[in-house]
Amino acid sequence: MQIAQPLNGYRAGVDPVLLASSVPAKAGETVLELGCGGGVASLCLGRRIAGLSLTGVELQADYADLARENAARNGIDFTVYPADLKALPAEVKAQGYNHVIANPPYYDRARSVPSLNVEREVGLGGDTPLSKWVSVASKRLAPKGQLHFVQRADRLPELMSAVFKSLGSIEVQPLYARTGRDAHLVLVRAKREGRADFRLHAPIVMHQGAEHGGNDKNYNEIIEAILRHGAGLSFGGVA
Amino acid sequence: MQIAQPLNGYRAGVDPVLLASSVPAKAGETVLELGCGGGVASLCLGRRIAGLSLTGVELQADYADLARENAARNGIDFTVYPADLKALPAEVKAQGYNHVIANPPYYDRARSVPSLNVEREVGLGGDTPLSKWVSVASKRLAPKGQLHFVQRADRLPELMSAVFKSLGSIEVQPLYARTGRDAHLVLVRAKREGRADFRLHAPIVMHQGAEHGGNDKNYNEIIEAILRHGAGLSFGGVA
Repeated sequence: MQIAQPLNGYRAGVDPVLLASSVPAKAGETVLELGCGGGVASLCLGRRIAGLSLTGVELQADYADLARENAARNGIDFTVYPADLKALPAEVKAQGYNHVIANPPYYDRARSVPSLNVEREVGLGGDTPLSKWVSVASKRLAPKGQLHFVQRADRLPELMSAVFKSLGSIEVQPLYARTGRDAHLVLVRAKREGRADFRLHAPIVMHQGAEHGGNDKNYNEIIEAILRHGAGLSFGGVA
Repeated sequence: MQIAQPLNGYRAGVDPVLLASSVPAKAGETVLELGCGGGVASLCLGRRIAGLSLTGVELQADYADLARENAARNGIDFTVYPADLKALPAEVKAQGYNHVIANPPYYDRARSVPSLNVEREVGLGGDTPLSKWVSVASKRLAPKGQLHFVQRADRLPELMSAVFKSLGSIEVQPLYARTGRDAHLVLVRAKREGRADFRLHAPIVMHQGAEHGGNDKNYNEIIEAILRHGAGLSFGGVA
């Protein structure tokens, strides 16, 4: 898959690819992505699983256009609305989705320094609180629908508090860059009306070895299969 | 150390020992344990670190007596009040503690089946919500004081939501029984007025190998050092 991204603005890394890999969607299901940017997560998901109905919402019109272009370039149907998630279009509000996915901005700007590049800043440190992302996502879920977020690990208390208020069957997949370090990323999944116990899954360590070895990122097999071959990711790292 | 425990009631396992091992207290500091039961956590902590001022509160008077006997038996000063944590004695309310520790009941009885043994049931599934344990603990912290809880991993969303409301510098140490399984236990630490980022530490896997090998629990080195030699536990498993 080829994705066009702006040279100067916010550019997607591996995180939306990991998010997409973890969504256990099935043909015929509907997926809504909040803050879809250039469309990486939804398009990866559409590539991996055929027959999904994909919808995206993106605050920045330029990125919404880019997402549409990327969808066309890859021959994947993807309906994209340029809109604020706090004021969703009527077409989106009219529907419940089987999956709502998001890779919300990672930085809480009450506590950190913004980027000088405005478009990049909206992607990195938008001023909509994480709790709002979760409440909007939760409201858009069909019965038994699932929420899937990827987020920096250090915002897990904020994210989990928000999810715990409205959804059940919460699961966290922690991602560790290296053995022995703190988790740097979390995938969080939860279900509308879910009643299963919370699960903190076995860690997935992304890189082999203790340090970066030159240009080779040395991804482990699970991550390599996702990034290179579009494989799915099972929580707990089970193939 | 020798600890007397009832044959039929609630008996402490390794969890309070792990809790005690993780508290970085220093001589001269004050420690309050909520729901101290027979006193295992506080007495292990007092054995590892000399010069602490240890106070316990226990709802069940028999266990409070037992905690005092266990303290005397091991020559450790430990002041124990038989009291409900929802109605702490004036002596306890008058003070702020450097550390408040707890191993609250593990089962939410709105969702599970109670034990028929009444004393055991209060230790396993008491009806005080986890959020109450956290709010009482938080109020008893001295400035910059730390809360330390051990709890079943599947209650992390409830526990973390409560901690996130009142404290900062939250850290979670997940404990995994075996490689590849879900976490079964979490140590949660937080600080009054703390402003550091949340940390999800590198996993500690408690047992070696994939399955129990007969009677040998096969603890890994870190856990073995804690249980057999009273060693301290650093979050992230760093010795």
